[in-house]
Amino acid sequence: MAPKYKLTYFDLGGLGESIRFLFHYGGIEFIDNRVSMADWPALKNSIPLRQMPLLEVDGKVLHQSVAISRYVGRLVGLAGKNDLEDCEIDAVVDTITDFRLHFMKHRFESNPEAKQALKEKLEKEIKPLIFGQMDLWAQKNNGYLALGRLTWADVYFVALIVSFMLSEPELLENYPNLRAMQQNVLSIPRIKAWVEKRPKDVVQ
Amino acid sequence: MAPKYKLTYFDLGGLGESIRFLFHYGGIEFIDNRVSMADWPALKNSIPLRQMPLLEVDGKVLHQSVAISRYVGRLVGLAGKNDLEDCEIDAVVDTITDFRLHFMKHRFESNPEAKQALKEKLEKEIKPLIFGQMDLWAQKNNGYLALGRLTWADVYFVALIVSFMLSEPELLENYPNLRAMQQNVLSIPRIKAWVEKRPKDVVQ
Repeated sequence: MAPKYKLTYFDLGGLGESIRFLFHYGGIEFIDNRVSMADWPALKNSIPLRQMPLLEVDGKVLHQSVAISRYVGRLVGLAGKNDLEDCEIDAVVDTITDFRLHFMKHRFESNPEAKQALKEKLEKEIKPLIFGQMDLWAQKNNGYLALGRLTWADVYFVALIVSFMLSEPELLENYPNLRAMQQNVLSIPRIKAWVEKRPKDVVQ
Repeated sequence: MAPKYKLTYFDLGGLGESIRFLFHYGGIEFIDNRVSMADWPALKNSIPLRQMPLLEVDGKVLHQSVAISRYVGRLVGLAGKNDLEDCEIDAVVDTITDFRLHFMKHRFESNPEAKQALKEKLEKEIKPLIFGQMDLWAQKNNGYLALGRLTWADVYFVALIVSFMLSEPELLENYPNLRAMQQNVLSIPRIKAWVEKRPKDVVQ
């Protein structure tokens, strides 16, 4: 029987990787449909918001990477046990998104002076504020970001940060509890197996 | 008995207003704790991520505006009936966030040339793409953004857009289905009553 789930994303980690991590964590078969940069312009025009990832489930097409990660996170048992727990996980993920937006702004700035200013802001302001807080969360939650146990927020963060660390290997240098959390996730056997066999990513 | 919920936010609409709308929609009493700009610097240092809104529930402090809106949306019966429905709502809200970030970037740009370039991008690219798609969703969903019925995504959008329209009254001009959706939400009796009695907002 064909898998019930079909993920469509670029042939790289980025915003699709957390979804792949979550499916592998849950041992759930899915079609990992990777779109080449050559094929993307033609496909793009057929996608309403011109964005991937997309996840097809029984003919229904889901979109937005965080919304899909939340859906698959629940599917594989990594959501909260009640609404308050879900809100705690969601707030962690929204905080990760805040960091991601600052990080990407720096990454894609083409003006060298502006890029340097964004780099300084990232190092002196954003990382101490956001990673500093997340490091405390990881310390208080047994090496996870929320609820004292593994949730989809951890998997979401690690899948993303592994992509970011291709260009910035020292990203978590000053945050020992985040590094420990990353190791907790990467040592889960099914995730470890996926990271070992997945297509080698390039710096994005 | 004191209300179980205490919302802390600036004395304006912004990212706190969707939470106020949702509580009023559900007829749920809450403390609407409004922080003046004079009091904010001192309070700011006591808040881990230096951000509001915050929602206190039974002594637990929730953060991140979208996560809190999802929590209160579920509380007042405006969430999905299953995980696929929730994912559809979440994707709409993440799309609204995409628009919000573009809008705020333009709003807070201080360089006049850069601001003009962002304005053009907003008008010629972002609005046609995002509002164009959202207008189609509203058309297909009986005047709502998802699931053919009122969800917290509609309330979230309208509460936010009403703030934006203080400075840009024509924001939804070319999107008749979004205007109809906005009227659907603003004509709900409890929301109408709140909008009539709430503190008058100023352009932010």
